[in-house]
Amino acid sequence: MAAFVLATLGTAQAATLDRGQLEQSADRAAAASYKEWVELLAIPNDATVPADIQKNVDWLVKAFARRGFQARALPNGDKPMVYAEYAAPGAPAAGRKTVLFYMHLDGQSVTPSQWAQKSPWDATLKARTADGKWEALPLDKLYAGPVDPEWRLFARSSSDDKGPIVMFLAAMDALKAAGVEPGVDIKVLLDSEEEKGSPSLGQVIGQNLALLRNDGMVILDGPMHQSNQPTLVFGNRGIQLVQLKVFGASQGLHSGHYGNYSANPVQRMASLLASMKDDNGRVTIPGYYTPVKIDARARQIMAAVPDDEAALKRRLGIASPEKVGANYQEAMQYPSLNVRGIAAGDVGPKARTIIPEVAVADIDLRTVPETPPETLVALLRKHIEKQGYHLVNGEPTAEERARYPKLASLTAGEVSASSSAARTDLDAPVSKWLQGVMQDTYGRAPVQIRMMGGTVPTGAAVQALKSPFVIVPLVNADNNQHSFDENMRLGNYRDGIRTLMGILQTPFR
Amino acid sequence: MAAFVLATLGTAQAATLDRGQLEQSADRAAAASYKEWVELLAIPNDATVPADIQKNVDWLVKAFARRGFQARALPNGDKPMVYAEYAAPGAPAAGRKTVLFYMHLDGQSVTPSQWAQKSPWDATLKARTADGKWEALPLDKLYAGPVDPEWRLFARSSSDDKGPIVMFLAAMDALKAAGVEPGVDIKVLLDSEEEKGSPSLGQVIGQNLALLRNDGMVILDGPMHQSNQPTLVFGNRGIQLVQLKVFGASQGLHSGHYGNYSANPVQRMASLLASMKDDNGRVTIPGYYTPVKIDARARQIMAAVPDDEAALKRRLGIASPEKVGANYQEAMQYPSLNVRGIAAGDVGPKARTIIPEVAVADIDLRTVPETPPETLVALLRKHIEKQGYHLVNGEPTAEERARYPKLASLTAGEVSASSSAARTDLDAPVSKWLQGVMQDTYGRAPVQIRMMGGTVPTGAAVQALKSPFVIVPLVNADNNQHSFDENMRLGNYRDGIRTLMGILQTPFR
Repeated sequence: MAAFVLATLGTAQAATLDRGQLEQSADRAAAASYKEWVELLAIPNDATVPADIQKNVDWLVKAFARRGFQARALPNGDKPMVYAEYAAPGAPAAGRKTVLFYMHLDGQSVTPSQWAQKSPWDATLKARTADGKWEALPLDKLYAGPVDPEWRLFARSSSDDKGPIVMFLAAMDALKAAGVEPGVDIKVLLDSEEEKGSPSLGQVIGQNLALLRNDGMVILDGPMHQSNQPTLVFGNRGIQLVQLKVFGASQGLHSGHYGNYSANPVQRMASLLASMKDDNGRVTIPGYYTPVKIDARARQIMAAVPDDEAALKRRLGIASPEKVGANYQEAMQYPSLNVRGIAAGDVGPKARTIIPEVAVADIDLRTVPETPPETLVALLRKHIEKQGYHLVNGEPTAEERARYPKLASLTAGEVSASSSAARTDLDAPVSKWLQGVMQDTYGRAPVQIRMMGGTVPTGAAVQALKSPFVIVPLVNADNNQHSFDENMRLGNYRDGIRTLMGILQTPFR
Repeated sequence: MAAFVLATLGTAQAATLDRGQLEQSADRAAAASYKEWVELLAIPNDATVPADIQKNVDWLVKAFARRGFQARALPNGDKPMVYAEYAAPGAPAAGRKTVLFYMHLDGQSVTPSQWAQKSPWDATLKARTADGKWEALPLDKLYAGPVDPEWRLFARSSSDDKGPIVMFLAAMDALKAAGVEPGVDIKVLLDSEEEKGSPSLGQVIGQNLALLRNDGMVILDGPMHQSNQPTLVFGNRGIQLVQLKVFGASQGLHSGHYGNYSANPVQRMASLLASMKDDNGRVTIPGYYTPVKIDARARQIMAAVPDDEAALKRRLGIASPEKVGANYQEAMQYPSLNVRGIAAGDVGPKARTIIPEVAVADIDLRTVPETPPETLVALLRKHIEKQGYHLVNGEPTAEERARYPKLASLTAGEVSASSSAARTDLDAPVSKWLQGVMQDTYGRAPVQIRMMGGTVPTGAAVQALKSPFVIVPLVNADNNQHSFDENMRLGNYRDGIRTLMGILQTPFR
């Protein structure tokens, strides 16, 4: 048995492309795929319009089927997802691993008038002029070639996340053209509601556990490292939303008649928020960071990330960052506490001279695997009570008002698996496999992100399927995803195909 | 000369009404005046509609002229004010004082649909039912009498401030009917924009300094003490608006990617606001309260005010007040710092997971005569800078962003004389005169408010005319002024006429 496995692997390895072949082959595959990319981008994909989602699903099922995948829609109300699988001819080879590739077919909502082109669905090729502006080129220049890697294709989902889907199809075509069989059995899941927070991903996976079973998941979503070097991301923070209200008098009061007498809830909210963080941005709620342990190896990995913090600070428009971690990467390894919105009374021309009756702060807590949401919410609750607050549910009653000098409420949002933190060990087999692919494909180690700060719905898959994941971002960091004028750099498109060919041709042991 | 003065005064005193006569006479005068009150209330008086203001002016000029006043409109753009004067027959008697009565003819804006009656201009008589609701009665019950002092007349400006104007006219009629000549020379100024902050009062006074010259001003506006006992108010706080902005990154940032790295301006605003006040509501900005000195006599006056703080706390829905003063009255003697509105990002369904780029707090500083607005703003500015902030004008530049870790702006609103604090000594001649009138009219000392917390435009008159003022509020405290269902209690209407008769018949020495 062991001998057979080795022989099989030996054969597969012999049939892979080397670094130079990969590059040339990816270039050709890119050129051959542009029309299909533009065609897919022309189908609107806001998940608030189920009919549009269905059109994307139909197109994608056919596109995968054309490549020899068994492809079909996975039921999910009126927004089905897409499932496709591709196995080596005949029965699965012993010792051969199955990899699940996750992408999403839906896109962010658009405001067409904001876009500097006919429509966000009308993919537009653009080149940057000498004075830094984007100028449209005829699409024929894309189709006829040769293309400049600095040109970009502008359209909703050009990067997020239809670009990677089409790159994936092109990589399959390129391997086939080169006579290379994939080194792994392939499963593909295309989410239809990722931009809405993947509310039903956990459920769809739960209903299809056997179908989706795998040895490792590759998430093809999100931007590469700012340096635009090949990137692997091994984890992401989760998110827990909470709303904090601090109550004042039972109604807004005349600030002249009651200023200095009836406590102002904004002032109290300010003191309460100020008690939660120090001047360096570190959370001071006891125990908030305690479970997070970062060892020397992790610190080394993070220090090796080529972040240009001077450029980052310039870009953000800040003189100095908070001091939660020694550097940007380290800061992302800790849970956060962020006031995403605050409101009381009015500001500007509508402001009235009142003591507002209530101050509302919407807060997001980014979680890490060591600090699950319920732990952080419990610590926050305890901290607020320790500041002298009586926490009520809903509005305080007259009796509570008469009894407690300080009244507040804390409401925690629902937590789904999609919003959980998740992290894969950098020495896990799937990690080693992809590190090797990147080294082989580009001749150097990739940028390795231990855990990114944002939240992607890896948790839903990890919790249901109990398999490890790695995120392999392929698109340029400055792609304007989630905003208008989303685009993909053509050099990234070509290199993405190359990366995917490398992944698909390499056995995962 | 001295002998002549004494003789004149002796004559005038002989012709005054005693306590019982005042009460009976005021009752009759009230009954005779209801139709005129309802007629005046029927003329809308929102100062945003100049044509309506003109109609009120025309009506009032005629009404004063009918009583023997020299009355006319005082030019003020398209919202003239009304001036009227009434002197003793012949040349002004030597030693006789001139008193300027200030009232206002304009009213707050209305939302008619909120009112529980046909229209806010259609005065409606109501009685309270056993279960505490207000039930309409036919107006004939008002005109035919006898009226219940607990009945109320509901209409915009019934209390604020047409009620006092009609009471004043009725008091003049009553004195005339009794053959009593006023004890002072009378000047009347009716503001047309009080509810809009009296923006041009200072200017109109400045253009008519000689005309308006007086020995003391009586401001007939605002509610009586909660106890509904005869009240004198000797001062009011002023107001200075400021807007504080704390800047974060140059745009809203993804809270996942930048939470723990780029400082949150709401968090910084919270720390900054928290540094300005302690948990007892006392301003901790050095020097903020320092110039305020309250002596033993003032403390005694304030302690004598029959405030029911237990009832007040119940009404406000708070368990305990701030500890700026030993009691409510004392708290009003200090300048305040009140966050009237705060905003950053969004709250509720529109909230997004961002680090907002800016936090905005609109603040009102109630001033007292010892702490003028420019002093408080300078202290505030110094305090903010001491917390490490660089204060910018407008938006920070890229250079300022790169240089200063903490950026904020502080914008002070314009200060007009109308928004200044003002206070008259309780031992000033005008104070003594009115204290005596109240004692004579009601047989006991009035409630004396050293300085009320709100702002009324006394400062404009005080600064221009250099004469002292006392506010004599006449209307029930629960009159819903500035809101819908404004009303006046008929008992207050009758007693207001009585108070004004007392004032008008009593020489001011």
